[in-house]
Amino acid sequence: MAYRLKCTVTYDGKNYAGWQIQDNHESVQGALEASLQKIHNGTPIRVYGASRTDSGVHAKGQVFHFDTEIPLTGERWKLAINTYINNDIYVLSVEEVDEEFHARFSVTKKEYQYKLSNNTFDPLRRFYVEFERRPLDVELMKNELQCLIGTHNFASFTSHAEYDSYERTIHEAEIVEQDGEITFRFIGSGFMRYMIRIIVGTLIEIGYGRKENLAFIMKQQNRKLAGKSASPHGLYLEKIWYE
Amino acid sequence: MAYRLKCTVTYDGKNYAGWQIQDNHESVQGALEASLQKIHNGTPIRVYGASRTDSGVHAKGQVFHFDTEIPLTGERWKLAINTYINNDIYVLSVEEVDEEFHARFSVTKKEYQYKLSNNTFDPLRRFYVEFERRPLDVELMKNELQCLIGTHNFASFTSHAEYDSYERTIHEAEIVEQDGEITFRFIGSGFMRYMIRIIVGTLIEIGYGRKENLAFIMKQQNRKLAGKSASPHGLYLEKIWYE
Repeated sequence: MAYRLKCTVTYDGKNYAGWQIQDNHESVQGALEASLQKIHNGTPIRVYGASRTDSGVHAKGQVFHFDTEIPLTGERWKLAINTYINNDIYVLSVEEVDEEFHARFSVTKKEYQYKLSNNTFDPLRRFYVEFERRPLDVELMKNELQCLIGTHNFASFTSHAEYDSYERTIHEAEIVEQDGEITFRFIGSGFMRYMIRIIVGTLIEIGYGRKENLAFIMKQQNRKLAGKSASPHGLYLEKIWYE
Repeated sequence: MAYRLKCTVTYDGKNYAGWQIQDNHESVQGALEASLQKIHNGTPIRVYGASRTDSGVHAKGQVFHFDTEIPLTGERWKLAINTYINNDIYVLSVEEVDEEFHARFSVTKKEYQYKLSNNTFDPLRRFYVEFERRPLDVELMKNELQCLIGTHNFASFTSHAEYDSYERTIHEAEIVEQDGEITFRFIGSGFMRYMIRIIVGTLIEIGYGRKENLAFIMKQQNRKLAGKSASPHGLYLEKIWYE
């Protein structure tokens, strides 16, 4: 009897072309499917992820599901997958769910974080934090950020033209600063491709005085008015919520 | 007129076969010398390091010196070297010193730290922290560590047979624990090869109950009684002191 498993996974995105499986590039989904295929004695297993993180983006709490007929406890499944996968991916938990559950379509909210440092460059963290040399006015960035909360058209903050609607809802947006380390937190119904990185890139340019007025940039629905996309290495898929 | 420069450098040791230059392997010294050779229009420049960190070991405050005739300020030297070197090495400061100064022979004290985690494996930190799954009795480890302080024969904690004397002086040794993250700090006159990693490896085995009595192990002057060498990825050359 087939049953459905919900898995929470953390990964270092540095060496991957992103979550989604693709030809000639290593993907997190591809690595997980290869691991599951070995456990299933060669039978291909499809994995469905909550979020298609881009190349270089990290995850602390990505969620995926798959169906299987192999009877194992969640703890044994976790051990089995982690045994067959390399050390830049680590399954944190596996639990059986109702067959109605879908890792992507059942999502209610997602949290992303972006890590930025205004301190001296640290080679040991170069793939895990974005460094900005120019001094940032963090209080100004905190004030500007507020306009994002609510339901808005975010067309200024995506370069992807495939969406039926550019409307999204951001429930929470905040900046926490400690000793020159700046963490952006965003909780929303969903985010378009590059949306958080372009928002953060624009806020960085506001922070050092090159741009102003995030609300105006948003209202124009014009990608050209926004800033550069911030590096993927600072971005973390933090958490996925389901009903 | 030639003059001498003292440089402080931080690096990610993950992709290097260690500090010391060697055939067919990337070394930190080799990378710095290649960078300086470019700045000197092809003239080879010898670099002298304070500590020969091993393969995979990191540095927050390694020190080296070199001699040059190019007249630049410390700030310009820093910029020049960092421009020609890749991002896993970063020069923090450059200052002119007396010609009597020698990065290796003028050292008075060195500090090393070792980072160990007793928490869930985190793939994002796998090259920067050692993970130990088995629960550790950190209070016991703290007590056992005390016997190292002072001047002792540390032959039990090195596999290297080339030393005239196995006597070294440890001025400070402590363990700081916060939320399952365990940092070992050692300040001493100097450390033999693998010494800190073998001490930490032995303390880990004491921590989960496989070994006991670090003082006894030290007194026997026998490498076989000590534990396994802990992974290089947790080890950091933190600071070098000069008179």
